[in-house]
Amino acid sequence: MKRVAILGSTGSVGVQTLSVIASSPESFRVSALAAGRNIEKLAEQVREFSPEQVAVADEEGAAALRARVGDEVPIGVGEKGLEAVATHPSDLVVAALVGAMGLRPTLAAIEAGRDVALANKEVMVMAGALVLRALKRHGSALLPVDSEHSAVFQALSGQRREDVERLILTCSGGPFRTWSADRIAKATVEEALAHPNWDMGAKITIDSATLMNKALEIIEARWLFDVPPERIDVVIHPQSIVHSLVEFVDRSVIAQLGLPDMRVPIAVALAHPARIPLEIPSLDLAAIAHLDFEEPDRTRFPALDLAARALAGGEAAPAVLNAANEVTVARFLAGELSLPRICEINGQVLDAHLQAHAGETVDSVDAVLAADAWAREQSTKVVQEAA
Amino acid sequence: MKRVAILGSTGSVGVQTLSVIASSPESFRVSALAAGRNIEKLAEQVREFSPEQVAVADEEGAAALRARVGDEVPIGVGEKGLEAVATHPSDLVVAALVGAMGLRPTLAAIEAGRDVALANKEVMVMAGALVLRALKRHGSALLPVDSEHSAVFQALSGQRREDVERLILTCSGGPFRTWSADRIAKATVEEALAHPNWDMGAKITIDSATLMNKALEIIEARWLFDVPPERIDVVIHPQSIVHSLVEFVDRSVIAQLGLPDMRVPIAVALAHPARIPLEIPSLDLAAIAHLDFEEPDRTRFPALDLAARALAGGEAAPAVLNAANEVTVARFLAGELSLPRICEINGQVLDAHLQAHAGETVDSVDAVLAADAWAREQSTKVVQEAA
Repeated sequence: MKRVAILGSTGSVGVQTLSVIASSPESFRVSALAAGRNIEKLAEQVREFSPEQVAVADEEGAAALRARVGDEVPIGVGEKGLEAVATHPSDLVVAALVGAMGLRPTLAAIEAGRDVALANKEVMVMAGALVLRALKRHGSALLPVDSEHSAVFQALSGQRREDVERLILTCSGGPFRTWSADRIAKATVEEALAHPNWDMGAKITIDSATLMNKALEIIEARWLFDVPPERIDVVIHPQSIVHSLVEFVDRSVIAQLGLPDMRVPIAVALAHPARIPLEIPSLDLAAIAHLDFEEPDRTRFPALDLAARALAGGEAAPAVLNAANEVTVARFLAGELSLPRICEINGQVLDAHLQAHAGETVDSVDAVLAADAWAREQSTKVVQEAA
Repeated sequence: MKRVAILGSTGSVGVQTLSVIASSPESFRVSALAAGRNIEKLAEQVREFSPEQVAVADEEGAAALRARVGDEVPIGVGEKGLEAVATHPSDLVVAALVGAMGLRPTLAAIEAGRDVALANKEVMVMAGALVLRALKRHGSALLPVDSEHSAVFQALSGQRREDVERLILTCSGGPFRTWSADRIAKATVEEALAHPNWDMGAKITIDSATLMNKALEIIEARWLFDVPPERIDVVIHPQSIVHSLVEFVDRSVIAQLGLPDMRVPIAVALAHPARIPLEIPSLDLAAIAHLDFEEPDRTRFPALDLAARALAGGEAAPAVLNAANEVTVARFLAGELSLPRICEINGQVLDAHLQAHAGETVDSVDAVLAADAWAREQSTKVVQEAA
């Protein structure tokens, strides 16, 4: 019986995590839940799963929750509340917050010796070096919860790290895979939001259209698996059935495949090293019939090279790239930028950072957040100057 | 430093095993070699690898070998010689003999507590139940050396057996995958010998054309991985890049991929649980571009159902199916039968066996060989009666 705490229980990954837990009640118990402002949904979850600790964004939310579920469960608030959930006695903490907000509570969980199932990719993108060092210091395990990194994690199962030749992340190619550069330059927000395989939020869907999503995943993989960036490749695979692959020194390649369904990587992380049954359809390769692969076009999709530049450029550089991208994507969604300008500006801001901070290490969350803040300011300025 | 004995060192798998060993001299030492009548090649191998024990088919061969390599290495002869190599102090015995001849020495290696790398598929096809019981009794490990079973073995790495939902063996479909039943009925020996992906001997190439090869592999997988036959599926995959897959209870599917090269499964078996580098090209999925999958057509290719019937029908039944097939393939190669008659006669002989021996267990190699002899006689009779 694993005790599971969830940071971000009312978001998409949080809700799916609870549905997986509900389907295997003999394997899991919910120990703590942290949500933001969706009090109605959190109240439902508290009633269904009886956690020992919960957290919400503010006092107003805490009062509203108390009115719904009574006094029995302690309710934390804000950063303190997140930390209480992250460090509550548990066997696994599911880090499913969005953005930089997850950084401190995830590190708190690691420092408390908890294993962490990580869906909050900004944690590794922004502070991968820092998190990797904390993991080594505290002996905690990090279990990835997204389809590509879960695939790599599964392919590495039972294998020695020194036998790994390279990681190969698959990438759907997004909605503009077959579009010319000219046509991409004129893509509308609606066109960019039409992702072929996964139903996701707006920000991550735009990242899939620019391939910045894959750039961020390269950065994440570099830290999650402690593999140098030159050993991380990307192959375009439009069907999103092969979720990623690992090549070993003997040229064996191990892949993980499946229908696109987030419950699979969630269940893998929750149950590791066991597996739990999921009531979802089997992969029927004969019905799918064809799996296609192609080289990514680094001219039409310059995002991939930004990952390599960020990883070569000092430990704060990925946080800068990530923050710049959050600003530029927001501006694209607001209709202020063309799609190719997203990566152009991301690259300009990254280069400006690298000129001043090449090769620097990062030793605190504050330093990461300072780099993030600088990059937001800088990219906002670049967008405004260009307008 | 692993000490490796090879049964069948001058055959295709034996020679490739020695080439893998030669490429990793710091990892392996050759302890013993058994060959048949290719004395010239065995003499070369003795000079290059300095084994402590060798074996040849007969006294004439022993004398010829002695004339070439001198008196330093003990030379065994016939069955005794094979047993001396199989039980020589080693960490791993590579069973690469062909056919029923490998049965006794492989069991002798298992009974001596040796781990066995098995390329000699008839051992598991003919005597799988017997071998499985011997493995459990003596605590030996069996490491598969063919691409499909090596793929399953690798996909199972680090996984719990109780989490396996099904094994999915891939099958190229052979040269007649897209042919109509009428056209297959008129296929010539030359057409049947033109295998699209692998360069193999005549017998096994005909087995690929009828899909009897896959039927035998289903039987082998059933015993190698101790998985009930209803959990073993086949999918047609013409490119032979995905070597096989395993589905788990959470619908994750793990696959092993690679260019078709026997040195990979050989190296995997030799080095397990480590891996050794091989100087062969990387798999380039973008260059391959497409992987295709389709359901096998059990009407045009009735061999697959023979595997299920044999496995449901008592422990000697697979040996009967295998022996009947050896006879019918030889008759096809001699131009005496059409291709569809191979499986028709195999099925008739199997059914005749099942009528008398359904549900019987097998407790000795002699019993297996008696079933084999009966099936050869019976199928020869059926072929003659039909002529």
